Amino acid sequence: MPYSVYLKKNEEKRLLRGHSWVYANEVARIEGKDKNGALAAVYASDGRYIGKGYLNHLSKILVRIFIRDGREDDETLYRERIAEADAARRRLISDDCYRMVFAEADDLPALIIDRYGDVLVLQCLSLGISLKREMIVRVLNDLFRPRGIYERGDVAVRAKEGLPLESGVLSGEVPDKVQIRENGLIMSVDVKNGQKTGYFLDQKENRSAARRYCKDARVLDCFCNSGGFSLNAATVAKEVTALDISEFALANMRENAALNQFTNIRTQCADVFEALRAYKAEGKKFDCIVLDPPAFCKSAAEVRDACRGYKDINLLAMKLVERGGYLITCSCSHYMTLPLFENMLADAAAASGRRVKMLEVKIQAPDHPSLLCAEETMYLKYFVLQIL
Amino acid sequence: MPYSVYLKKNEEKRLLRGHSWVYANEVARIEGKDKNGALAAVYASDGRYIGKGYLNHLSKILVRIFIRDGREDDETLYRERIAEADAARRRLISDDCYRMVFAEADDLPALIIDRYGDVLVLQCLSLGISLKREMIVRVLNDLFRPRGIYERGDVAVRAKEGLPLESGVLSGEVPDKVQIRENGLIMSVDVKNGQKTGYFLDQKENRSAARRYCKDARVLDCFCNSGGFSLNAATVAKEVTALDISEFALANMRENAALNQFTNIRTQCADVFEALRAYKAEGKKFDCIVLDPPAFCKSAAEVRDACRGYKDINLLAMKLVERGGYLITCSCSHYMTLPLFENMLADAAAASGRRVKMLEVKIQAPDHPSLLCAEETMYLKYFVLQIL
Repeated sequence: MPYSVYLKKNEEKRLLRGHSWVYANEVARIEGKDKNGALAAVYASDGRYIGKGYLNHLSKILVRIFIRDGREDDETLYRERIAEADAARRRLISDDCYRMVFAEADDLPALIIDRYGDVLVLQCLSLGISLKREMIVRVLNDLFRPRGIYERGDVAVRAKEGLPLESGVLSGEVPDKVQIRENGLIMSVDVKNGQKTGYFLDQKENRSAARRYCKDARVLDCFCNSGGFSLNAATVAKEVTALDISEFALANMRENAALNQFTNIRTQCADVFEALRAYKAEGKKFDCIVLDPPAFCKSAAEVRDACRGYKDINLLAMKLVERGGYLITCSCSHYMTLPLFENMLADAAAASGRRVKMLEVKIQAPDHPSLLCAEETMYLKYFVLQIL
Repeated sequence: MPYSVYLKKNEEKRLLRGHSWVYANEVARIEGKDKNGALAAVYASDGRYIGKGYLNHLSKILVRIFIRDGREDDETLYRERIAEADAARRRLISDDCYRMVFAEADDLPALIIDRYGDVLVLQCLSLGISLKREMIVRVLNDLFRPRGIYERGDVAVRAKEGLPLESGVLSGEVPDKVQIRENGLIMSVDVKNGQKTGYFLDQKENRSAARRYCKDARVLDCFCNSGGFSLNAATVAKEVTALDISEFALANMRENAALNQFTNIRTQCADVFEALRAYKAEGKKFDCIVLDPPAFCKSAAEVRDACRGYKDINLLAMKLVERGGYLITCSCSHYMTLPLFENMLADAAAASGRRVKMLEVKIQAPDHPSLLCAEETMYLKYFVLQIL
């Protein structure tokens, strides 16, 4: 018999609005006996049925609801949801690379599937979804007949679910590098060793939108990783400096530059804070600077420190932009909300002594949808500033 | 001798961060004697010079600072600022229509200049800038040699400045309708009688971005005005219903549809709230609905009522979208901040019983820059939602 989870009084509101996550401290009692990873039914304190999802006592999130009616978590349900998620992307995206399934936003909590050409990369970030892995692979093979399916399980959050941090081929054949097309560019994606699932597709459309600010410009791409912004910039820029602390990332960047026959990109292996300070000391300026750092805060407690980090680096960058030039600045931490990010930028602008105009605000690409009922799912901010 | 305006203690902070507006209640004393509309120097309570701007005792905003150094408000300054503002647009925009000067964001408070092909439309929204009108026209003729310059002075805010509500040709020849190119479309702009300066350029890039959601779709464009969204949608849509309460706007819409030889747009003259309720009653659905209403709130006091109005109309629209379809929803009131707007949409989504995903968030186009130091200058929100 599956678990029945009864919430404390007044803890059902967020869930009834469509949020998926049930935290342990919201639960009054649990009836039934079953193992972690199994399906549990969640009820309000008055006995109203809310929905079903996988339970895990090891996790901070006790249940992740994804079924709101009486359906079972069978192959048909997975097949329907994955097919619908893929179809939604194909209506909007013509490139061969996109996030096919984005967890809660596609009603498949903790499941990430990225498509890179004919290879699919899977992440199972909860115990419950991990136990369905074989079935998901079968569904993916049936629906899309990919060349191969790879699992990237080297994610810290899996440890919190009691899952091993292991990666590997789940089906078919997966080459070390997969070539994809992004905004007309060829990108070589290292699905086995690159960050996350190999590449950051959430900025694909923003990288395309960034090109207009790079025309004939001297561009500095900070935290360039495998070179997404650098290569998009290089299509129109005079010269691009691709800056990252990782030689591994820069090697991938150079491979991508060569694939597209760009000769206007140079790489610099350095800590970004230090490199920006050094540029300032030598009086160097750029026409456009891209700041797309990794998340400075991974918990609510770190927000204050993170704000300081974001302000420091944005302030430094503002000072390095030529008069009339641009700063393209991002945050991928959902704790750094859009208003917090904007306030931080206003503080940095005031401290910089420069006059700063806001030209664009955007978020993660539409193949990474967020849910209005779950504000944590909106995580990426992309601002274009002009610095006078 | 010009006015010297001394602020009360601690009232200088916002201005030192770059904001332009000095309110009467922030001022300790005024020295000197001069007439409304003249240049005044503003000082902090400790005597520090902050900047200069035009003063008007009739206005809620006593001074609008736009000079921070020792410069005079002479023709050279206007020429430099207008030329710089225009150059900033031309770097980013290839169409022949854009906002050339956007008031505070271009350090020319209360001055709006829109370019529609070879015609410029001017708005002077303060007494001080209005007194410089002849000089501004001379500068514009020198710099750009337009076919004509038209003033749209029929703006309520001018009355608060003690200015007459009058419009007319300031220079050259201005036809009743000016044809412009927007995203590859021909649009006929009624610079003399259309809303604001004749057209809403601030949504131009969002209208282009909206096309991807209209492919083969039955589109409903609410508050269509002269048809910007309708025509952009019609390039890819199956059929577009262009809805507006104004027959005058719809006539312009039809003219634009004819100019581009679209036969897939029908117009409907009706109150949008009533029309949406009627559609609901008859069970009609759409694949994509655009909601781009006029500002529901024009003061902070109206925000609560406005939230209700926005929620009502968004809730209605959500119910009319086919499963998997899109709602493109906007607000052009800066009082309705981005977080307020998002919360309102989350409330509407909860009330609609639909699962609502957020696919895009954008703001006004980059030729309508806002200032990080003056949050009132960011006014336009554009959200794309998918409704399940």
